[in-house]
Amino acid sequence: VPKKPAKPTAPGRRERRRVETREKLYRTAMDLFAAHGFFQTTTEEITEAADVGQGTFFNYFPTKSHVLILLSERQIEKVRAALEQAETGSVPIHDLIRKLVHNLVMELGRSQPLARSLLAAFVIQDDVREVMSATLARGREYLTRICQIGQERREVRRDHKATDLAMTFQRSVLGTLLIWAMQSKGDLHVWLEKALADFWTVAGVKSR
Amino acid sequence: VPKKPAKPTAPGRRERRRVETREKLYRTAMDLFAAHGFFQTTTEEITEAADVGQGTFFNYFPTKSHVLILLSERQIEKVRAALEQAETGSVPIHDLIRKLVHNLVMELGRSQPLARSLLAAFVIQDDVREVMSATLARGREYLTRICQIGQERREVRRDHKATDLAMTFQRSVLGTLLIWAMQSKGDLHVWLEKALADFWTVAGVKSR
Repeated sequence: VPKKPAKPTAPGRRERRRVETREKLYRTAMDLFAAHGFFQTTTEEITEAADVGQGTFFNYFPTKSHVLILLSERQIEKVRAALEQAETGSVPIHDLIRKLVHNLVMELGRSQPLARSLLAAFVIQDDVREVMSATLARGREYLTRICQIGQERREVRRDHKATDLAMTFQRSVLGTLLIWAMQSKGDLHVWLEKALADFWTVAGVKSR
Repeated sequence: VPKKPAKPTAPGRRERRRVETREKLYRTAMDLFAAHGFFQTTTEEITEAADVGQGTFFNYFPTKSHVLILLSERQIEKVRAALEQAETGSVPIHDLIRKLVHNLVMELGRSQPLARSLLAAFVIQDDVREVMSATLARGREYLTRICQIGQERREVRRDHKATDLAMTFQRSVLGTLLIWAMQSKGDLHVWLEKALADFWTVAGVKSR
């Protein structure tokens, strides 16, 4: 039975289409950044590959950089969700942090070419860098609270400042991502498990 | 008393001038990479700022990327020198690694704009990336041997593989450099001391 089409003017449908188009532009942009690099990709190439009108891009993203700003919002949302989960207290901090790490690289770690392209934009595209730097700072605040909750629950060592442990976490994950991105092979998730093991050597309560 | 000038044809002097010119081009290039970025800087701008003939650049560096390849050779030389020092056995591994860390960022960490420019080139300029990736691999080999010497001397824990500890080291240093480079302020050497403290929590023999 063919689905009955929704009324074109229904606000629900319009909003749904808007979300779909934004997502299509976002995904297409990421694919092109992976294939040709962030700097080499034009907004025209994105709209052409996404099969929408040239001007459509700017209804969703004021500039090409805003694609990466949306990425940064999605990243921070993952950390915020992990904090919320820590606050409910049902999941061990250890499990929650492991899930978070693998979740955080889901987009960035799709392929080495994509990771390279995005890391380069994070450092030398100034508008992206400023947003990413603020995102990392906000991420550290959330991670600090996660570590504090871990300390209260005796799952995280209490003789280290939670803010330092948050930095240990970001340093490990970003260092791993950077070294992995420079290689032509290697399984990022395996590398991250080693980084996680080191993180817990620093942050864990169990004596060795 | 004015110095007696060396004979212009003396081979010692010619070689010295060659080394000086290469160094001048290298330093000028780094300054321009810091000011305008690696990708935005042309070899003409480098020779003009270094006050040498346009073609001179190519007598020393086949391409602009070779400036960064020289940097990678200097980096690996620092790690090799640290290994040599470890082999002589007179300096504690702890002190030797601290010195190495601060030494390794002497060039890259001169300023955030320089670090950004170089990190971006390391990931998206393919010829540079390939060399840097090989340099990191060679660096890990040397670091592995340093950690093995530390294990033999009971200065480094023996229940971790030395190769894993070498990766822990690079992950910490590069993660720190990347996060620092994205900021507009912060003392890299202070940040590195925290990364070193974490490294020793993972690699050290002393129980906490």
